[in-house]
Amino acid sequence: MHNFTYHSPTKVIFGQGSVPKIVPELQKAGISRVLLLTGGKSVFASGLYDTLIKLFQEARISCETISGVQPNPRLSKAREAVDAARKSQAQAIIATGGGSVFDSAKVIAASVGSGHDIWDLITRKQKVTDALPIFGILTLSGTSSEINDTSVINNEETNDKMPIANPLLYPKVSIVDPSLQYTVPLQQVRYGGFDTIVHVLESYLATNDTAEVLAEHAESYLRRVMACLSTLPEKLTDYNTRAELTFCATYAFSGWCWVGRSKRGDFSSHRIGHALSALYDMPHGVTLGLLLPNWMEYVLEKGLNRDIFTRFAVKVMNVPENAADPAREGIEALRAFIHSLEMPTRLCEVGITAKDIPALTENAARTLPFGSVIPMDLEKITAVFEKSL
Amino acid sequence: MHNFTYHSPTKVIFGQGSVPKIVPELQKAGISRVLLLTGGKSVFASGLYDTLIKLFQEARISCETISGVQPNPRLSKAREAVDAARKSQAQAIIATGGGSVFDSAKVIAASVGSGHDIWDLITRKQKVTDALPIFGILTLSGTSSEINDTSVINNEETNDKMPIANPLLYPKVSIVDPSLQYTVPLQQVRYGGFDTIVHVLESYLATNDTAEVLAEHAESYLRRVMACLSTLPEKLTDYNTRAELTFCATYAFSGWCWVGRSKRGDFSSHRIGHALSALYDMPHGVTLGLLLPNWMEYVLEKGLNRDIFTRFAVKVMNVPENAADPAREGIEALRAFIHSLEMPTRLCEVGITAKDIPALTENAARTLPFGSVIPMDLEKITAVFEKSL
Repeated sequence: MHNFTYHSPTKVIFGQGSVPKIVPELQKAGISRVLLLTGGKSVFASGLYDTLIKLFQEARISCETISGVQPNPRLSKAREAVDAARKSQAQAIIATGGGSVFDSAKVIAASVGSGHDIWDLITRKQKVTDALPIFGILTLSGTSSEINDTSVINNEETNDKMPIANPLLYPKVSIVDPSLQYTVPLQQVRYGGFDTIVHVLESYLATNDTAEVLAEHAESYLRRVMACLSTLPEKLTDYNTRAELTFCATYAFSGWCWVGRSKRGDFSSHRIGHALSALYDMPHGVTLGLLLPNWMEYVLEKGLNRDIFTRFAVKVMNVPENAADPAREGIEALRAFIHSLEMPTRLCEVGITAKDIPALTENAARTLPFGSVIPMDLEKITAVFEKSL
Repeated sequence: MHNFTYHSPTKVIFGQGSVPKIVPELQKAGISRVLLLTGGKSVFASGLYDTLIKLFQEARISCETISGVQPNPRLSKAREAVDAARKSQAQAIIATGGGSVFDSAKVIAASVGSGHDIWDLITRKQKVTDALPIFGILTLSGTSSEINDTSVINNEETNDKMPIANPLLYPKVSIVDPSLQYTVPLQQVRYGGFDTIVHVLESYLATNDTAEVLAEHAESYLRRVMACLSTLPEKLTDYNTRAELTFCATYAFSGWCWVGRSKRGDFSSHRIGHALSALYDMPHGVTLGLLLPNWMEYVLEKGLNRDIFTRFAVKVMNVPENAADPAREGIEALRAFIHSLEMPTRLCEVGITAKDIPALTENAARTLPFGSVIPMDLEKITAVFEKSL
């Protein structure tokens, strides 16, 4: 077991009907003026926006709204919100949405608190010295942004996408009501669930050197998310199924899964997958299904990580311990699982062929260096894409 | 899965050699004057005290020491520390010890921060409005006080023992270095490990209604602590064994084990066991071994909780699913495990007989009401003691 630091200060209020609990949390913190930050239409269509406005009115909390935060959140929208927060003297940001809204709320809070432009903070020209408190209401599981201190923002002027992390950016409180996600379409829930699986796997498969109790935690996340996804079509509005998926999505990427490991993980599937999103506008979850099993095969063929791949096969994928090649059978079982979610596992299934690989590789290589099990380069990224054909 | 709030804001710095990391944490918080609070002799005998004083001197952090905090920490000692903290204008409390030192640090921090006497805060005559930050170094696992917001203090003038809990009392940082506990004698480590098991079991056995992923977490804590205790005699200074035991002890009682349950747990074994400690000066872990399996038998005979007791037997104690009476065999297996730790499971083994039960019952009943599976009263406490003969 390796040394670690674990810090997860966000207070999580979890469960059906929890939205009104935001009011006493704001009151306890002495907050009476807020900036409400939302995404596009769904928060209005679902009635959540009206609910919040009514709650704030009843509690005499004045509220300014900035809506229209997009996936891959943009700098210009965040800057607009900073101006609004300053003008209205907001004491807190209320992030109501998915990862992009939480990510935006973090840089807005830092910019208002520190008195510097967002991009200067992200590029470290200026320091984050203070931040407005963030109170969140999660409407779409994904990045665990609701309980971490990290934000990724797109500068659409320079075409840069850059992360920032700072302990001042942990949300103070995050309200996670799984029933707010009932209206998300089946296939999108599957993509999100598979993203949760990969968040766990990218740590779990990278090393085999944490405490047994923590390895077992990871395995129970994996087994349970898979089990819930398997019955999802009949259980799209079954509270316990959705609650377990939501719970796992929030905590899977909280840092818990890399506690005690010599490496945080190998995030090559995520990094290489971004190229498929960039060039083919493919959902994030689909890119992971296309790449992860093939990255695993590539690693195995290099003679690496057989022990932990075998453990994964036996403990998660139910491959018999005495199988001829359990590590490889585990990968096959994972592919079958991905197919069962009506997701592809080969690039040919989505019409991508060998001639497309150079452009994909060039795009994926932009964020090098990455890869802790196999440090990637142009040649190796090409090899992973070729394996995925 | 039931609604829950989970909040665990303490930053845990875990691992061998982590003690010096307290200095940058204090510096980041702008702290240059501290009150160092310790227990009796071990912190001096081990050299940890000298290490800390040297670290503080090198970092120009001025330090006042109050030592001699006892198990079941006393109000008078805590008041003495409040005076010292005020006089030296300490900006933080450094708790260096086990649960009693952390518990004391919390009320000292609250008293200095709020400007009120400790007992007035505990009895709610005055409110905790602020608290000095607490930075801890754990030298003995037990109560999870290093990551919770709770303190229990003995008023030796009135013979009262009372708890206080407040979110301002979470330690800011806790340094948990398992190797600091190498010098704890084998039998004491076993008692502590069994206490960890019971902390998990008192939640786990009380209800069967949380998410499957959380039930599996609890089971992996139980299996792993049992496995580590089983090999402990040969592995008293094996880092991975001690690290896993320490990790489980810290997180077992952090609130994680009752997340998603309709009830936090049934703490009757702890409550009734306190009478054995009070009247026979028996180690806490021993009292739990004497009571828990017998409380379980009592519950089972009332026709309650068979499902979760069966699950415990199969998933934790390796009882075959098709056993004649798996729930009861699970209890027998637990008794055998307790015996394997050289701990008693019957009062007769420690010389307590039927004639001693009235006094024990009277003592245990002082903290009524307790018991969520079976609400206890005089008659029922007597019955549990009789079962334990």
